[in-house]
Amino acid sequence: MSEHLIWQNIRLLREKSPLVHSITNQVVSNFNANVLLAVGASPIMAHAEEELQDLLNIAQALVLNIGTLDMPQISAMKKAQTLAMQQNLPIVLDPVGAGASALRTQTALHLLKTGVRVLRANASEVLALAGESAQTKGVDSTADSKNALQAAHTLAKTYHTTVCMSGAVDYVVTEAGVFCALHNGQSMMTKITGMGCSASTLVGAFLAVEENPALASASAMALMGIAGDIAAKEAKGVGSFAVSFLDALGNLDKETFFKHIKIDNQSIS
Amino acid sequence: MSEHLIWQNIRLLREKSPLVHSITNQVVSNFNANVLLAVGASPIMAHAEEELQDLLNIAQALVLNIGTLDMPQISAMKKAQTLAMQQNLPIVLDPVGAGASALRTQTALHLLKTGVRVLRANASEVLALAGESAQTKGVDSTADSKNALQAAHTLAKTYHTTVCMSGAVDYVVTEAGVFCALHNGQSMMTKITGMGCSASTLVGAFLAVEENPALASASAMALMGIAGDIAAKEAKGVGSFAVSFLDALGNLDKETFFKHIKIDNQSIS
Amino acid sequence: MSEHLIWQNIRLLREKSPLVHSITNQVVSNFNANVLLAVGASPIMAHAEEELQDLLNIAQALVLNIGTLDMPQISAMKKAQTLAMQQNLPIVLDPVGAGASALRTQTALHLLKTGVRVLRANASEVLALAGESAQTKGVDSTADSKNALQAAHTLAKTYHTTVCMSGAVDYVVTEAGVFCALHNGQSMMTKITGMGCSASTLVGAFLAVEENPALASASAMALMGIAGDIAAKEAKGVGSFAVSFLDALGNLDKETFFKHIKIDNQSIS
Repeated sequence: MSEHLIWQNIRLLREKSPLVHSITNQVVSNFNANVLLAVGASPIMAHAEEELQDLLNIAQALVLNIGTLDMPQISAMKKAQTLAMQQNLPIVLDPVGAGASALRTQTALHLLKTGVRVLRANASEVLALAGESAQTKGVDSTADSKNALQAAHTLAKTYHTTVCMSGAVDYVVTEAGVFCALHNGQSMMTKITGMGCSASTLVGAFLAVEENPALASASAMALMGIAGDIAAKEAKGVGSFAVSFLDALGNLDKETFFKHIKIDNQSIS
Repeated sequence: MSEHLIWQNIRLLREKSPLVHSITNQVVSNFNANVLLAVGASPIMAHAEEELQDLLNIAQALVLNIGTLDMPQISAMKKAQTLAMQQNLPIVLDPVGAGASALRTQTALHLLKTGVRVLRANASEVLALAGESAQTKGVDSTADSKNALQAAHTLAKTYHTTVCMSGAVDYVVTEAGVFCALHNGQSMMTKITGMGCSASTLVGAFLAVEENPALASASAMALMGIAGDIAAKEAKGVGSFAVSFLDALGNLDKETFFKHIKIDNQSIS
Repeated sequence: MSEHLIWQNIRLLREKSPLVHSITNQVVSNFNANVLLAVGASPIMAHAEEELQDLLNIAQALVLNIGTLDMPQISAMKKAQTLAMQQNLPIVLDPVGAGASALRTQTALHLLKTGVRVLRANASEVLALAGESAQTKGVDSTADSKNALQAAHTLAKTYHTTVCMSGAVDYVVTEAGVFCALHNGQSMMTKITGMGCSASTLVGAFLAVEENPALASASAMALMGIAGDIAAKEAKGVGSFAVSFLDALGNLDKETFFKHIKIDNQSIS
């Protein structure tokens, strides 16, 4: 049962406290760092090309997030990706806003082609990267994740990667098809900036303790979703939701985890 | 009665969920994005010149905030402004720290001269931009908004714009004079970074659903102020105030709005 | 008794509200600005070389934080340091992640050699800057502050500075030896990003009202630690801890201060 493997990964994360190196966007860096600390991991955000090799030598995963990309940052991301691949470090790509601008779509496709262990994206981004015409509203998804499953599978096969697609239902899709569907999480999570980016960072953290990218992706989405479910019960609004979410991430115990987890392991594609 | 028009705008914002493109400062980007999401709008923060045209094609407003300006960002702001004007997109300028450095004053004046729909500023910044000697303490205002009304009117007339001036009393000033004075809001709002910047972002969001810049400005300040009034009752200090403020922004209902709104529509200049 | 001098400094900070200019990292800028506002100081974050002189003319302290350094920012830090020294403005250096990359270690050493009033660092960073082999996990310390006391003393003597070293016990170390040890604070503070950086910012604020760098450092660490102690009692987890911490920083009164303060003034080196 993957529930037990996921709980084991959550425990491993707290025990091993991997260092996750992010080149990420300015909007979410604080929240993402706090998410990593809450689950027991250790964040470093750094983009200077002069120090990438040193930092990747001590990091256990690399997360690339194009949310506020610019030319110097794209250059740093490419260099970091090359260095990480040389040492077989797991790489997560969050193609924030792919489809909203040619620069985002092309940058994401370039990184995807070069090689990423997991593509963590919303449905609009998945559709855009698969070349399908998708509505987009900047960095927020307007598409249903269920309707992007075929596109996700295409991306997984084309780029030999695992696609972790967030939405009302989260899907993990491998070259072989849908690995699992996760039913935790709350719509209020779309009202706090950086939730998707945090999921990507958590996938990076789990890849440091779990070799199977599909299981690492499922672990991250389950943890995010359950924390969201718990927070929704306590929160009075979007402000207190973000606070309760961080509390729940850090406090999650075994009993609460197994009480909440809703995962569908049956391949549906 | 402008109260009813303002409440209508708040409802329109939630219904239409406009995409607001900000080129803003690193300090407030997270808080501002959460403010936009709380009120039902959609944020995108992006500064790469290579994608400005694509993003402005899908955005409904542009907000320029010079809080952590540097030369590349100034260049991006100028380009974004030009592109936005070509498609008649509403532009809001927040001249953070104008008067504190020549770079800020000159950059703000350049953008103001080129054309902005609304200048959202505090009293110190208004005085500085009007060429009056104003005390400044960096990005925080040391002047009383009432004493900057004449300067605000001068700016409105000189640059054919609407001035939305925040302070203990918020004023909306057009070329014709004072449009309204708003008496909501709490002094504790000056103790949370990014409150003024959030007001500017909200003006941008309202300009996407309300053609009259004075009414859009009043809508933003009313919503900010009422959320502040509600938060002040619940908060134990500055930390919980920011949390309650976001809760209140998202939860505001009609009854609470009409109970709190304090707006003076009589022109006082 | 230094307790009374520290309380006096906390009151002075609220009364004088100094403007603290930070060139800092993108991850913590929002939290640090809110920390400064909570204690009554005024933040400005700015890095454009074109406005450094103007801003330092009105600032009372300069804080340099290398947490997300890159070449343009290093250049700005060097220029700001030179300008601040010309007007005898107090300078605090936070060498975030020194030891994790050569770029960080070398940049921190360069700034340290040029001249800083206080070096505010964790034990891993102190050991790295003293040239001792130290384990590092990116920006988080893995060393015990007690074991870095000798290295801190070496740095103080070599660079004629005061070392404010945070850890389970905080130490303030001058050329003459250990000035004091502070026993406030909670381990949960290591689970919120930017706590160390906030301590550095507060040292900057206190240097604006207290000439003695050791006492300014002790004031900052006492205030941080006590706010952490109070927050730990109220918080349900890491999210609410950060909120309660800001509340406590702003609300601290004399009675609560004297009830909590745990400082050991006896030199122990």
